Amino acid sequence: MAKRKIRMGMVGGGRGAFIGAVHRMAAQLDGQIELVCGAFSADPAKSRASGEDLFLPADRVYDSYAEMFRREQAIPADERMQCVSIVTPNHMHYPVARMALEHGFHVICDKPLAFNLTEARALEVLVRKTGLIFALTHNYTGYPMVKEAREIVRSGQLGKIRKIVAEYPQGWLASLLEATGQKQADWRTDPKRAGASCCIGDIGSHAENLAEYITGLQIESVCAELTTFVKGRKLEDDGNVLLRFKGGARGILSASQISINEENALAIRIYGEKGGLEWHQEEPNTLLLKWPDRPRQILRTGGGYGYLSAPASQATRLPPGHPEGYLEAFANLYRSFAAAVALAQTGKKVPARALDFPTVADGVRGMAFIETVVKSSKSKQKWTRMPAR
Amino acid sequence: MAKRKIRMGMVGGGRGAFIGAVHRMAAQLDGQIELVCGAFSADPAKSRASGEDLFLPADRVYDSYAEMFRREQAIPADERMQCVSIVTPNHMHYPVARMALEHGFHVICDKPLAFNLTEARALEVLVRKTGLIFALTHNYTGYPMVKEAREIVRSGQLGKIRKIVAEYPQGWLASLLEATGQKQADWRTDPKRAGASCCIGDIGSHAENLAEYITGLQIESVCAELTTFVKGRKLEDDGNVLLRFKGGARGILSASQISINEENALAIRIYGEKGGLEWHQEEPNTLLLKWPDRPRQILRTGGGYGYLSAPASQATRLPPGHPEGYLEAFANLYRSFAAAVALAQTGKKVPARALDFPTVADGVRGMAFIETVVKSSKSKQKWTRMPAR
Amino acid sequence: MAKRKIRMGMVGGGRGAFIGAVHRMAAQLDGQIELVCGAFSADPAKSRASGEDLFLPADRVYDSYAEMFRREQAIPADERMQCVSIVTPNHMHYPVARMALEHGFHVICDKPLAFNLTEARALEVLVRKTGLIFALTHNYTGYPMVKEAREIVRSGQLGKIRKIVAEYPQGWLASLLEATGQKQADWRTDPKRAGASCCIGDIGSHAENLAEYITGLQIESVCAELTTFVKGRKLEDDGNVLLRFKGGARGILSASQISINEENALAIRIYGEKGGLEWHQEEPNTLLLKWPDRPRQILRTGGGYGYLSAPASQATRLPPGHPEGYLEAFANLYRSFAAAVALAQTGKKVPARALDFPTVADGVRGMAFIETVVKSSKSKQKWTRMPAR
Amino acid sequence: MAKRKIRMGMVGGGRGAFIGAVHRMAAQLDGQIELVCGAFSADPAKSRASGEDLFLPADRVYDSYAEMFRREQAIPADERMQCVSIVTPNHMHYPVARMALEHGFHVICDKPLAFNLTEARALEVLVRKTGLIFALTHNYTGYPMVKEAREIVRSGQLGKIRKIVAEYPQGWLASLLEATGQKQADWRTDPKRAGASCCIGDIGSHAENLAEYITGLQIESVCAELTTFVKGRKLEDDGNVLLRFKGGARGILSASQISINEENALAIRIYGEKGGLEWHQEEPNTLLLKWPDRPRQILRTGGGYGYLSAPASQATRLPPGHPEGYLEAFANLYRSFAAAVALAQTGKKVPARALDFPTVADGVRGMAFIETVVKSSKSKQKWTRMPAR
Repeated sequence: MAKRKIRMGMVGGGRGAFIGAVHRMAAQLDGQIELVCGAFSADPAKSRASGEDLFLPADRVYDSYAEMFRREQAIPADERMQCVSIVTPNHMHYPVARMALEHGFHVICDKPLAFNLTEARALEVLVRKTGLIFALTHNYTGYPMVKEAREIVRSGQLGKIRKIVAEYPQGWLASLLEATGQKQADWRTDPKRAGASCCIGDIGSHAENLAEYITGLQIESVCAELTTFVKGRKLEDDGNVLLRFKGGARGILSASQISINEENALAIRIYGEKGGLEWHQEEPNTLLLKWPDRPRQILRTGGGYGYLSAPASQATRLPPGHPEGYLEAFANLYRSFAAAVALAQTGKKVPARALDFPTVADGVRGMAFIETVVKSSKSKQKWTRMPAR
Repeated sequence: MAKRKIRMGMVGGGRGAFIGAVHRMAAQLDGQIELVCGAFSADPAKSRASGEDLFLPADRVYDSYAEMFRREQAIPADERMQCVSIVTPNHMHYPVARMALEHGFHVICDKPLAFNLTEARALEVLVRKTGLIFALTHNYTGYPMVKEAREIVRSGQLGKIRKIVAEYPQGWLASLLEATGQKQADWRTDPKRAGASCCIGDIGSHAENLAEYITGLQIESVCAELTTFVKGRKLEDDGNVLLRFKGGARGILSASQISINEENALAIRIYGEKGGLEWHQEEPNTLLLKWPDRPRQILRTGGGYGYLSAPASQATRLPPGHPEGYLEAFANLYRSFAAAVALAQTGKKVPARALDFPTVADGVRGMAFIETVVKSSKSKQKWTRMPAR
Repeated sequence: MAKRKIRMGMVGGGRGAFIGAVHRMAAQLDGQIELVCGAFSADPAKSRASGEDLFLPADRVYDSYAEMFRREQAIPADERMQCVSIVTPNHMHYPVARMALEHGFHVICDKPLAFNLTEARALEVLVRKTGLIFALTHNYTGYPMVKEAREIVRSGQLGKIRKIVAEYPQGWLASLLEATGQKQADWRTDPKRAGASCCIGDIGSHAENLAEYITGLQIESVCAELTTFVKGRKLEDDGNVLLRFKGGARGILSASQISINEENALAIRIYGEKGGLEWHQEEPNTLLLKWPDRPRQILRTGGGYGYLSAPASQATRLPPGHPEGYLEAFANLYRSFAAAVALAQTGKKVPARALDFPTVADGVRGMAFIETVVKSSKSKQKWTRMPAR
Repeated sequence: MAKRKIRMGMVGGGRGAFIGAVHRMAAQLDGQIELVCGAFSADPAKSRASGEDLFLPADRVYDSYAEMFRREQAIPADERMQCVSIVTPNHMHYPVARMALEHGFHVICDKPLAFNLTEARALEVLVRKTGLIFALTHNYTGYPMVKEAREIVRSGQLGKIRKIVAEYPQGWLASLLEATGQKQADWRTDPKRAGASCCIGDIGSHAENLAEYITGLQIESVCAELTTFVKGRKLEDDGNVLLRFKGGARGILSASQISINEENALAIRIYGEKGGLEWHQEEPNTLLLKWPDRPRQILRTGGGYGYLSAPASQATRLPPGHPEGYLEAFANLYRSFAAAVALAQTGKKVPARALDFPTVADGVRGMAFIETVVKSSKSKQKWTRMPAR
């Protein structure tokens, strides 16, 4: 029988959405996934118009996610969608993901995992129970040089890690953009849809995920100050956090949405006893290695030199000097997700190492971080501990 | 009736090919084009295996391009392929493109346009005669900041252009890679498949196209030195060219495949009477503007600031700081090509401004440049003129 | 009567010293100051050898600073030294500076001002009482682009300041260098000579001074964590500090001596309501300006463009593109100090605006910062206030 | 007897001069040289005012260089100047240098060596005949990382050199600045004072010197196009040159004074059979090394890492990350010159390796290059050979 593409549905991501379009491009890039259906908006007319834009047949465009899960389940297995991409605002991650899992669909979900830690833990339980594949799009871990960085730390070349400096400055919320009705600003600054945090939830959690992903270390306690600089805003737009990692490493995490003219400047510097590294998301194909007694090295994405690790090499599509960017990194998650879904569909057990993407466990950890930082910010005490699992 | 994706076939690009995979990712990224058939290799078994990898039905995978054009023509119009992507080595551009046009298919073809100038001119005649859409993938003009650069020159902000420095250093052919059987090196250094030039044909012509695209100026005469540094190589691997442009501008074009550790470092600097600009392909989302009495400016891809021209804004998919790269620029050509094909399919005349991609005319110009540089390199005379149209 | 150079003595800076040689080069660069005498070491033989290296007559090279002050006072006024440069380890700043002032000599002293805050305040009183000129070499404020940054903040172009990120990573103390007898490491990590802090005292206080200098804002309270990563070290080699400024700005100050391969990477980023700026000491001739709706600007040292403020222009010696560095910035302090001394020698009152260098007041502030950070680091409470004046 | 500083006189460099002030700062920085006399201007009043600015006694400030040489010769040997710095416009290099040599004074002279090749050769003969020290301030070879680059090429790490790309863009003459009376532009664009060339003479010759210095290769023939872009200008303001080196290396040299907003962007890239390197004068403390199979390396000025060659280490004064710039590189020439003069004064033969600065031979080579390029630019023939020695 001929090989088939993975069949995917989507919830959210209707006309005008940013992250929905990103997910679709990421899913399409490698030609492994076919978008077969969707519930693109809570507004049925908008959902249908979006489906038409995407060349979907009218009968696979649904008025609601509930309808979609129900009706897709009734379609013959070899046509039915196999997985769903959830690209709604935060408060709608949990209900949609739960229903998807309960109906037997694999899930790839935008971050943060849920509206709060309680929801996040409930999802983790459900994923374990159903045995379905669950990917969370902490997309920055999809970059080849982030994978290379993790391999380098793992290899012990840097020695025991001492210091981690993670930062994520942006400037787009330096004024009260939500007052203009701008869609992205509107829900991200609304505690009813975004949750307890804006800046840390939206971007700080990416920095946390990146730091833990590369170093393999876990944050133990935090000392945070969150600030709302823009008058009239309901959630914080800036956060500075001191970090203590298990095992003794120390760190700083700084996230900001009011740092004018900073675009999406996620960056990380890590220093160990024997060496260090540095990576910038805006120049993602470069990784700097730092040594005490040798010249600094510039590692570069691309298969041409033969010095990169297998995980970094496999995450590239092009020769050196042909820049790969945000969408390619995002697509790496989708490609791995598709492979895991394909494997799961065969009925075999999917080994942990095939889950080369952030999982529900990362999502729980991220929600714990967000809640702990918010709690610390309100405390007069210096250190607030991350919750035990 | 529901909207449909553009249906595309492909010639070349079988397993192991580089540029074929690039074309497919570029075509798929925006979800406007569907690959429906292909003749992926001169080896029928390899063609079929490649088709299977791409999830194509067996009856749409052909043993030869001739068979494909003939049999696709016989398929009902609403299923038949509408256009073809040609991703073969240079010597196979002309015969495939000619047959495609003769069978009524729109064409998108990898560069350089043909094996020599004679073939290129013949294709130009054929395109004019058939009225079909013909795109040439000088992909670097698809970058948003290249479009911005062109708009800035056009606007007159830089004043009359005086000096143009275009360079394209690579290092991958610093040793006799073709002797190892490496596929990319093998045909590019073979005069029977690549044509009269390796370095200028493969990459120098991109630099030429970029310079003329941004400035709107035409090269009038050249003074070239081509060198083959690697012993045993049949074509040149390095070229330095002085340029005279119509209207008085002067320039340098330097291309190299033996500049070790240079990856794909296409770059251009342009200086006018009132200002200058600079762009680097390896950091494509940045454009530097240079002024005599004001600080240098860093323009950045992305819609967030509102200062970019419409062509540059329309060529981006993401907010600032979310790096777009080689594939996105390449996809811009495919997206524009798909739009032009869709318009042509309606039977309406496609206006010149809808052809937002390099055309057969750019291809003729590129072949003229390659041949003139080769001729100049053999001459003892300082200047060799580009041929009249 | 012919104009004369300013006559300067030096305490410390004998053979093998780093900062003493820096002070001498900085003092000599502009030809305004003549080194006429010195007590270069506590070891008389070494002091004499050093004096010989410096072409000084033997009778102006002293065995101790006490001897120098006493005997110089006895020399006729038109030959006697007029000012003294103090380049000893920290614990010797106070006694030397006090005696210099008591003997009527103007002082230029390396930072930090003293061994502790009590000494610093005593010096401040003495400077006020004597009316002598006192400069403290927080040399980084001597850079033209630091002065430009201050002017830009002052002008209001950035609006009210919201966030300040100051960092000063170094890597030279990543191992127990003091155990090898390396002179610079030896005293800086010794609480008896360096004071209560190594990393914050040596470099963190430069970052504090830079932040306050550029913004004109004062740190109100701090939340610090100091860490000693290298086993066997007696003082901290890393510090991360959250900052609250008077008026509501928030900040981070991170200093480190264990960040391998970081050289002297002092940097600052400042964001206001209307714009931001960024400066890096290792690329000191560039200042980035950031705007919400316009391209980022690259300001450059050098008089050629006419867009720089007067303070920045006056602090440069060369045309644009002729890099000025650490010594030139340092020399700017000496040049201003020499001018102030020359003015003071005329008997006129020296106006505050002629003191274009850090003063004893900056030194008191720096010592207060060091002590507050050390106190905060030991506290379980989140915030520790800076002492009132 | 006590050691003494080297006693130097100066010709040219009066009030308002640029390069004279540079020479003085460079000479003073290390405290090895004392300026004892001067003939600072052809205008005696200006010469005297300049001498006063420099704290010189009135009887050592002369009305003309002829007077200076004559009268200094009559001063007792232990007070008399020992060497002279010549910082006049080009047409005055030869007569001043000749008279200095004839009166027994060592010479350090600004570049280019002379007004034309004939004068240059005459000086070379005279230097040989007198046995005096003669330094030419091709100052860019004084940078530590330029010395490191030369050592790396010499060591064979890059293999046989294939390609050299040298460029020197500036923008300060993009308009008719000489018409405003600006002093620097005035003489440099005047064939009576500058010689046969403006752009190549003033800056192109630096690029030529740098390329030959680092590689040890000699230019064999050139193919040049010189252009005068600014109307009313008497000499060229832009030049592009193809280069053939003895032994087979190929190159490009591009110099420009009309490249708006380029400051002083001298840069060089060199590629050999085994590796490459890159250096930029505006970021002088960094040297990039390029390898076919290993990550690119960033070498940095400063003694801290122990990987630099002795010549590079000895040319630095500061630890890593403390930027050294144009003046420090310039001062390296003066420091070596002073050491050579001191050695010569002892009456011993000065070995060639003590002449760690460009000499009269480099100056002859530079004048030959300038004249050959001017000749080539007028020729219709592709290649013009450099004259035999």
